[in-house]
Amino acid sequence: MIYLDNSATTKPHPEVLQSFQQVSTSFFANPSSIHILGGETEKLLLKSKEQAANLLNVYEDEIIFTSGGTEGNNIAIKGIALQHQGRGKHIITSEIEHPSVYEACKSLEALGFQITYLPVNETGVVSVEDVKRAIQPDTILISIMHVNNEIGSIQPIKEIGEIAKNHPKLFFHVDHVQGLGKVPITLSNSGIDLCTMSGHKIHGLKGTGILYKRRGVKLFPLFHGGDQELKIRSGTENLAGAVAFVKALRLIKERQVRDSEKLFQLNLYLRQELGEIEEVVINSSEQAAPHILNFSIPGLKPEVMIHTLGKQGIFISTKSACSSKDLDESRIVKACGFSQDRAKSALRVSLTYDNTMDEIKTFIHKLKEAINQLKEVME
Amino acid sequence: MIYLDNSATTKPHPEVLQSFQQVSTSFFANPSSIHILGGETEKLLLKSKEQAANLLNVYEDEIIFTSGGTEGNNIAIKGIALQHQGRGKHIITSEIEHPSVYEACKSLEALGFQITYLPVNETGVVSVEDVKRAIQPDTILISIMHVNNEIGSIQPIKEIGEIAKNHPKLFFHVDHVQGLGKVPITLSNSGIDLCTMSGHKIHGLKGTGILYKRRGVKLFPLFHGGDQELKIRSGTENLAGAVAFVKALRLIKERQVRDSEKLFQLNLYLRQELGEIEEVVINSSEQAAPHILNFSIPGLKPEVMIHTLGKQGIFISTKSACSSKDLDESRIVKACGFSQDRAKSALRVSLTYDNTMDEIKTFIHKLKEAINQLKEVME
Ligand SMILES: Cc1ncc(COP(=O)(O)O)c(C=O)c1O
Ligand SMILES: Cc1ncc(COP(=O)(O)O)c(C=O)c1O
Repeated sequence: MIYLDNSATTKPHPEVLQSFQQVSTSFFANPSSIHILGGETEKLLLKSKEQAANLLNVYEDEIIFTSGGTEGNNIAIKGIALQHQGRGKHIITSEIEHPSVYEACKSLEALGFQITYLPVNETGVVSVEDVKRAIQPDTILISIMHVNNEIGSIQPIKEIGEIAKNHPKLFFHVDHVQGLGKVPITLSNSGIDLCTMSGHKIHGLKGTGILYKRRGVKLFPLFHGGDQELKIRSGTENLAGAVAFVKALRLIKERQVRDSEKLFQLNLYLRQELGEIEEVVINSSEQAAPHILNFSIPGLKPEVMIHTLGKQGIFISTKSACSSKDLDESRIVKACGFSQDRAKSALRVSLTYDNTMDEIKTFIHKLKEAINQLKEVME
Repeated sequence: MIYLDNSATTKPHPEVLQSFQQVSTSFFANPSSIHILGGETEKLLLKSKEQAANLLNVYEDEIIFTSGGTEGNNIAIKGIALQHQGRGKHIITSEIEHPSVYEACKSLEALGFQITYLPVNETGVVSVEDVKRAIQPDTILISIMHVNNEIGSIQPIKEIGEIAKNHPKLFFHVDHVQGLGKVPITLSNSGIDLCTMSGHKIHGLKGTGILYKRRGVKLFPLFHGGDQELKIRSGTENLAGAVAFVKALRLIKERQVRDSEKLFQLNLYLRQELGEIEEVVINSSEQAAPHILNFSIPGLKPEVMIHTLGKQGIFISTKSACSSKDLDESRIVKACGFSQDRAKSALRVSLTYDNTMDEIKTFIHKLKEAINQLKEVME
């Protein structure tokens, strides 16, 4: 099997699963229970936070364990909106956000919020000037993703952070789900108030994630209850999931240091080889993240290619997994200004540190074969 | 170890953990991915729903996998409130709900909703007549729990369901977290529109749960995004968690059939023995659920007893885990009309089918010893 759909989800690392198993068995008590067993699990929970905080270079009381990226994004966006609506009801985001940001913003429109969806240029990047110009006196939130999940474009988070610093009354949220472990980001003193991460994109477990919330930032909780997780995310803590997330985070950070160059080489090779295939146009810019490469074969239905490669044990995807059931054009590729033909035929290869050059070579070989076979069915 | 805090959380069953492990490894793909691997995981997800539906005797499109009981309760209550506020802003609940219902309702007060908190009698039970009388033309939701988590009182869900049937414009939500696998409930054709369950209370995993949503009931989602889980609960599905939940559900239902009588006997013995200890008053009524027995030792700080027993490897709790950090009086015991002294000194023994008569005997023995020792420190 050659799995090149790592931006949809990754295979959990065996060590991550082992941690989950171990904690589930040996530390099963409720951290809120006041007996010794509860005390032990509470201690482990705090230790996990401390470790996560160290790995992310933030304070431990800035870590909120969540059930994943969609939850993190919704807590951040709706939490700011509902908590701070008295100060203003304007939010700035982009046209290429993940549905968990995009649709969360849309849902707020129904509640009377005004949303500015910033455009992107041909490389899929928001303009810093546009962000600055979009700020109104009643703007309470800027939500801009770090790395786009379909085309891998990297947004100017650092520069937007500087703008946010100059507007202390608005909050800045970053969807870092695709960037984590692949593209560096600085959280502390960066102007970032909230940052979403998800476990299953970094060989962690589904149902796990972290929302970074800068000290002092107030959110309206989506879950009320026993006041766990700084009162932001009530519910009996999934301690095994939290420990598993931290394990995955540590492992991916190690790979990032060790294998970033390798990922870059795989990307370079892919880009070169795809560039030489006449039927292929590449949608991801050269400045994009190394693990995501988006391309189109105009005239060819992407699901046909996915099926053809799938039969040979090679797995790539079309658009993001979250919207791929709806086989229409890609909102993201279209936002980059590409033609409908291109937006309707986009394919995505997404890598992990475990992928090898051999796998990529086989993929290119099989892709070429498939294109030759499928030429007949092309419109 | 004698673990008698099973209403706070239970130890995961080894088979449940094994299912989780297996699915995480062999079915790790994203169900939304359109390649074969995604198709396989999607099929398994649908199969899990079918199995859950069979076990609960409902339709598979009435099952929403969640991250637990707190999420289920919040989705249900806020989802109804936000979706149907145009029709009315009145909600009926009780004074003895779990914080995830109680605080969710309180949070809605801030958004302009009017909440009626019904009282309970000395046995901790809401009056059906009170429910009926509380209904107003603008009532959109009744949220009454099945089994109370602190004192085990069983609410007249069936009768309230009949009332709800006669008021087709309001919805009826039941927090079934403590009842699942212990006290039977009927969902279909019962007047119940929404019903919350949690995995970790039935030897399943933390971070897993189900919200039953009757066909046709519309909710405002708390998580927007990729439209997973009937568009009610977006986010990459925790398939391993879902399969693990269904496994736990099947196992607990088997135990319920096989071992209900045993649980009843343990409870009876506990009640008899506790009843004979001079310093003890029992707060749970004889009609309460068999797995929860609440009692007070007026004058004794409950944390002292928990600590004393804990040192000997016996684990019981005070109030519910979710509020036990705040060592004040129990809102629930107080709502039953008991004295402050009693409400401040409440202890809870909560059983599972794995507990044995020997364990209970040892507990009673050690409790008596501890009372004799601690008499001196009693106020
Ligand atoms: C950029 C981005 N944000 C958010 C999410 C949602 O994360 P999760 O799948 O953990 O809910 C995803 C992936 O689905 C993503 O790619
Ligand atoms: C009656 C009741 N409802 C809801 C919950 C919350 O469930 P969870 O711990 O899965 O969030 C609990 C337990 O904490 C409970 O006892």
